[in-house]
Amino acid sequence: MAKNRQIVLRERPTGMIDDRCFEVIEEPVPEPGPGQALVRIQYVSLDPAMRGWLDDRDSYLPPVGIGEVMRSGGLGEVVVSNDPAVPVGSTVNGLVGWQDYALIGGEGGRATVLPEGIDPIDALSVYGATALTAYFGVLDVARPETGETVVVSGAAGATGSVAGQIARIKGCRVVGVAGTEDKCRWVTDELGFDACVNYKSEDVAARLDETCPNGIDVYFDNVGGEILDLVLDRINLRARIALCGAISIYNATELPPGPSNYFKLVTCRARMEGFLLFDYVDRFAEGVLALAGWVAEGLVKHRVEVVEGLEQAPTAINRLFTGENSGKLVVKVA
Amino acid sequence: MAKNRQIVLRERPTGMIDDRCFEVIEEPVPEPGPGQALVRIQYVSLDPAMRGWLDDRDSYLPPVGIGEVMRSGGLGEVVVSNDPAVPVGSTVNGLVGWQDYALIGGEGGRATVLPEGIDPIDALSVYGATALTAYFGVLDVARPETGETVVVSGAAGATGSVAGQIARIKGCRVVGVAGTEDKCRWVTDELGFDACVNYKSEDVAARLDETCPNGIDVYFDNVGGEILDLVLDRINLRARIALCGAISIYNATELPPGPSNYFKLVTCRARMEGFLLFDYVDRFAEGVLALAGWVAEGLVKHRVEVVEGLEQAPTAINRLFTGENSGKLVVKVA
Repeated sequence: MAKNRQIVLRERPTGMIDDRCFEVIEEPVPEPGPGQALVRIQYVSLDPAMRGWLDDRDSYLPPVGIGEVMRSGGLGEVVVSNDPAVPVGSTVNGLVGWQDYALIGGEGGRATVLPEGIDPIDALSVYGATALTAYFGVLDVARPETGETVVVSGAAGATGSVAGQIARIKGCRVVGVAGTEDKCRWVTDELGFDACVNYKSEDVAARLDETCPNGIDVYFDNVGGEILDLVLDRINLRARIALCGAISIYNATELPPGPSNYFKLVTCRARMEGFLLFDYVDRFAEGVLALAGWVAEGLVKHRVEVVEGLEQAPTAINRLFTGENSGKLVVKVA
Repeated sequence: MAKNRQIVLRERPTGMIDDRCFEVIEEPVPEPGPGQALVRIQYVSLDPAMRGWLDDRDSYLPPVGIGEVMRSGGLGEVVVSNDPAVPVGSTVNGLVGWQDYALIGGEGGRATVLPEGIDPIDALSVYGATALTAYFGVLDVARPETGETVVVSGAAGATGSVAGQIARIKGCRVVGVAGTEDKCRWVTDELGFDACVNYKSEDVAARLDETCPNGIDVYFDNVGGEILDLVLDRINLRARIALCGAISIYNATELPPGPSNYFKLVTCRARMEGFLLFDYVDRFAEGVLALAGWVAEGLVKHRVEVVEGLEQAPTAINRLFTGENSGKLVVKVA
């Protein structure tokens, strides 16, 4: 009889995720109830926000409970279905969790059927949550205008890389911030950013001055910390800071100080605004359509890193925080 | 021959303004040139933002130069005029500076003629810059809706007291934060705030929990510092933080850490936005009219503290930072 491997939370991490946090268990493959479907998972997604779901505090989603399967986006094939809208053989995308099989519909997770002809990896990357986050964050929150200077941190990440390319499409000067020479080169040479600052090896303040001679109109922030402060010190009148993430603090055991230069928001009549993809569910189709057009025209490029094996997920997710990965990080389950 | 006493900047303050910063000099009363008018100053205004004008850094206005008359709002009577739009005997309001006489028009300062029948003190207080700042900050930036919870820091100050009353008019639950029992009592008993937290004698976190049981939808911030952080930790979905000032840091010699909890802006999809009254010049008439209506209905009350004598200005301005004053602080010059 087929088994369902599940990676369940055993202990909440303090700082980085380690061996004590998760355990692989085996359960029987569940039977779909009325209106439900059973999905054999092919890929699960690893995203920085997942680290926040492990902390025991109120947030936009409840924390993953001890003993529960780790929550994650992912995608798989429907193998049994009691829901005519989700036929056997279709590929679905949703919050499937770190496991081999998931139930969707009814009391199971929510998922959407992928249109035919879309590569599963593309569905998780350039048409997935990270790319849509970039799409709505740039166009709805940051709203850059032609000729403006846009800075993107985490520029080689799945979200930042797309955010910067969208700002380029909108006619902006785009400066990335990333953590290796390789990432910086990819961002400028392949993705077409105007410049990229290596925050690990360069003087970020001096390089921002150099690469943003007219100041900064928009900051798409994935990182927080010191870079946010350095950007605030260089913003222009009516600047917009779209707060997407703060990967520099997700593993902090104590909350570090906030941006000292936040008062620049007053002198520049500027705005700092947070957003979450969940609020744009009704507009996902619009976003995917726009991204698909840009991908077809070669205006949005992306990179995917595939890790083999479900059991690698708890180790691989740390690559997001150490800066080892670039582009979208996924785990191949089956 | 009449003399013009002027208070000029001698040395930039480090921390609080002290005796070394300003000097009183006497100059001849200036002659108005073509298109100019000479104003005998009756009152000058003391405002927290003036402290920022003394620091040697780029901001929304150039710093007051060493040897220059201290910039300030104020009001006086036109005594000589070469501008038919500004007749002798009219009262004008503008950036007149700390002195007995000012030139307006041409290369002099900008000023507007006060409509007849308005008390000069009212023109500087409840219809003045601080009240207009509250008006536009609340209605244009914070945009509170009926039933929302609004917190106002510096609640007994010239701006905060009006901001809170406008939020009350809009049907909000309004909680002030102030620094003495007297101020708190004035804010609740006279101005009609629902509650007021004494940040010097009370546990602010506990009192915010108690007075804002449904969380905080809007924060009108005059203060910055720790209170901003405590408020951020209690904001609701789609909260708006209107950054008006940060009086707690104006005299700091080094920029203190920013708000650690700024990431709540992401989880709550909230916005923190700075604003300046200067941007609303075109709508001053609208603001004054609205305020006048509310004053007439008894819905907006105010308090003015008058210090006698121009030479008192450099000492009196510190009352804003020590928390000694409440309401609008002005200096009677003549």
